Order: sequence, then C-alpha cells, then structure tokens
Amino acid sequence: MIFFEAHKRIGMEQQYYVKVLENVSWGLHFHSAYECISVLEGSVECVIGHERNTLTKGEAAFIMPEQLHSIETRETSKVQVLVFLPELAEDFHAVYQEKVPQNVKFVCAVQEWEKEPENIYLLKALLYRVCGSLVQQTAFVKRKTLSQDRLLYSLISYIEEHYMEECSLNQVAQICNCDYFYASKIFSETAGMGFLEYVNRLRIYRACHMLRETDYSVLRVSEECGFQSLRSFNRNFTKYVKCKPTQYRRENKLV
Amino acid sequence: MIFFEAHKRIGMEQQYYVKVLENVSWGLHFHSAYECISVLEGSVECVIGHERNTLTKGEAAFIMPEQLHSIETRETSKVQVLVFLPELAEDFHAVYQEKVPQNVKFVCAVQEWEKEPENIYLLKALLYRVCGSLVQQTAFVKRKTLSQDRLLYSLISYIEEHYMEECSLNQVAQICNCDYFYASKIFSETAGMGFLEYVNRLRIYRACHMLRETDYSVLRVSEECGFQSLRSFNRNFTKYVKCKPTQYRRENKLV
Repeated sequence: MIFFEAHKRIGMEQQYYVKVLENVSWGLHFHSAYECISVLEGSVECVIGHERNTLTKGEAAFIMPEQLHSIETRETSKVQVLVFLPELAEDFHAVYQEKVPQNVKFVCAVQEWEKEPENIYLLKALLYRVCGSLVQQTAFVKRKTLSQDRLLYSLISYIEEHYMEECSLNQVAQICNCDYFYASKIFSETAGMGFLEYVNRLRIYRACHMLRETDYSVLRVSEECGFQSLRSFNRNFTKYVKCKPTQYRRENKLV
Repeated sequence: MIFFEAHKRIGMEQQYYVKVLENVSWGLHFHSAYECISVLEGSVECVIGHERNTLTKGEAAFIMPEQLHSIETRETSKVQVLVFLPELAEDFHAVYQEKVPQNVKFVCAVQEWEKEPENIYLLKALLYRVCGSLVQQTAFVKRKTLSQDRLLYSLISYIEEHYMEECSLNQVAQICNCDYFYASKIFSETAGMGFLEYVNRLRIYRACHMLRETDYSVLRVSEECGFQSLRSFNRNFTKYVKCKPTQYRRENKLV
C-alpha cells in the first residue's frame, strides 16, 4: 500500500521525477507540482478536482498544481507517474496556471519515458510533449476555487500537521469555523473515505516509513504516528498492510 | 536546383520551419537561425564551419547561428530540414550560443517531424529533443572566429548585396583590404567553387524566382539579376537549370 507519495515537497530535493509504480493508492492530496499519470496495465480510479474518472490502459490524466486529487487501485494497476515543477515548463505554466483542463483524461505517448532523460533538454522535450498533447486534446477552463475546495485544503493541511497527535474532525471543524456534518460530508464525498479513515491511513503510511528507516521500537513508532494505544496501532496496521508491524519491518528494513 | 533557400530572413515571417526537400544544393551561407539537416534518402556533402562531411541516410548535422555552411547533392538526396530561431530553445541557446559541436554529425529521430507540430508546446518538444540528442552525442567546444571566417562573411555579404550589379572578387578584395589571391583561395576552399561561379549560381537562383513570380521579360530578369548580356544569362541558365529561361517559366510559373 502506497498511500502518500513523497512528492509534496518535491521542490526541495529534485525538480521532477518519473516512476513506474504498481497498485498505487494515494489518498486525496495536493502539491505545487504538475503531475501526469498514465496507465500501463490494469486500471485506477482517480478523483481530480471534483471529477471521478476510471483510467484504463493507454489513458492518462493531468493534474495541475494545487489541484486536489486521489488515486485508487481497485484490482491491479501499473502506472507511470511524471511529476515536475512549473519552472520546467515555464511557457506552459505562464499560459495555463490559472486554468484546468476541461477533460483530465487524455492520451499521452509514454514509451519515451522509459529511460531517464539524459540531459535537461531531453527532459524539457518530454515535458513539453506531455503539455502539448494535453493542449491538443482538450480545452481549458478558468479554474474556480469553490468554498468546498478551501475547506478541503484546510482539512488536509490540518491532518498533515496534526496526525501525530489527537486529530479529530470535531477539532478541525471548530478551527475552520464550519459545521461538523457539512465538513464530514464534503470530505467523505471527495476523499472517498471518512475523515478518521484518512487520518489512520496516513498514520500507517508514516509508520511504515519509520519501521523501514529507523530503529524505533514498535511502541515508539505507534506513539510518534499518533496512535493512542499499541492495540489501536496493531489493529490498523494489520487492516491496511495485511501483516504485523514486526513482520513488515523484517521484510522491508533498509540496511 | 535549389541554391539559396530563403531562411536567411526567417525571423521576419516565421520563427521556424520544417521541410522535406529533394536534391538540395545550397551554396555557402550563414543565418541567425539554428538548423538541423537529416538525411532520409541518398546522401549530401556538407561543409559546416571548415569541416567537410558526407551525411548518409539516418545521419543528421547541426548548424549554429551565424555558422558558415553549404550543402551539396552529388547524386540524389531527400533531406528533412528544421530551421528555428534561438528564442524557441532559449535554455539551449543560453548555454551553447558561444560554442560549436565538436562533431556536427549526429543521429536524430526525425519520424516525429513528419507532421507540423499542432501547438507551440509540441514544437518546443521537438526542438528540445533535437538539441538534447545533440548534447547527448557530442561535446561542444568554444567557437573560434578566425580571420578567415571574417573574410568569408564579408565576401558572402558583399555578394548578397551586389549580385545584381557588376560583382567581382577584385572589387571586394579592395574593399576588404585583403589580397586578391588569398581571398580567392580561402573562398574556393570553403565554398567548394570559385567566386564567380558562386555569384552566377546565386544570380540564376534569383532569376528562377523572378521567372516564377513575376511577368518581367527574360531580358529584364537577366538585367535585374546582374547579367551583363542576355547571352551570358542564357548560357549560365542552361548550365545550371538544364533548360532555357522561357521553358522554365512555362513549366514553373505560379498562376
């Protein structure tokens, strides 16, 4: 289970990446980079903005900076993901940054992504090809940020900053000064899961990372990731990862 | 016979062009655009800078702005030519404008040039692909402008401006304040033909253009293109175009 991929802060380490991934599932999130997902095998469900689409083999979707999106594999999938910062396709960004594609789905030749571009010009060629194919295939419309979006950004940012503590929708709703039931409904509709499930998935994703990369005890991992008890941690871990934390660590620990 | 192609002043009408041409021969010239020539069938001889190369099927050559070059078809050829202004590949230009490729020959996938790019991003993708492939395949060295080059630029510019009048190497050598025999040697060595032959070829090229595009009498065309007599015009025309001016006009006149 990959739930959150680390391209939120892509700008700090690298300007872009291209990866082939299997059976991806990323919860609702947003980031400052452009993203293109192209399906090589199987299919994925994706939510981009408020639109839900199924992408099958040969289809791609394009995501604008700061656009809410999620991806879920229901059966199996193999996708190619290209993430890049706006400055790498400046001319495109200058014209389209305030817009969104009318159709997020498009067809995008990806065979050339197979090997890492060997220099900045070949990388730019690839990015401009993707942007150019998109522009060729769809109209763009002015981007509207709905009050719903602003609420979702607030909720997701809050979770990002507070998942290691107690983190309830009740608290956020108070902070955002909005109705609990309204926030719950909007969140579930767009994220495709309840607020608490989203928080727990994120916690487990971070726990996996910690189990792989540190020597912290399971108890400490559980606490650092915001679980109130080891029991709750174990239950959630087994639910999403399909094995126990110790077994996961044994099989995935980086030397 | 195509001797001079009209991309010298490409900047005035368009920023780039892609064309497939057969049996090209262009005399020594230079312009402010980048140029890439890729051989689809047959072969061409090209001089770029001071280096002479034979390009055969699948091979391409890259020409930097203001770099002297000529192309000649000895038997048959079918080439794809891409010419573009520096501003279309700004990042490349910023780094390489003062340099020249160590090897002008490279391999460049051209199948994608087959149809006109449908938007500016697809065009940029194509140009960056060409630049990126070149950078991948060759080192660059600092560009040296030799005194020979400066002399050649002067001679060619002089011909460009004076071919419609009497235009002798003797005059130019005086104006450039250089030795007649030295200028003659340098010119012949680089252009692959004598000064007078170059002038006459250019005159005939311009005469062809005039015969196609205007209703001027053959005498007027001959005079406007700098021939001292109709006899000399007819002789040169038949030599290079392999038919008489009237026949050429009949077969090529634009309606």
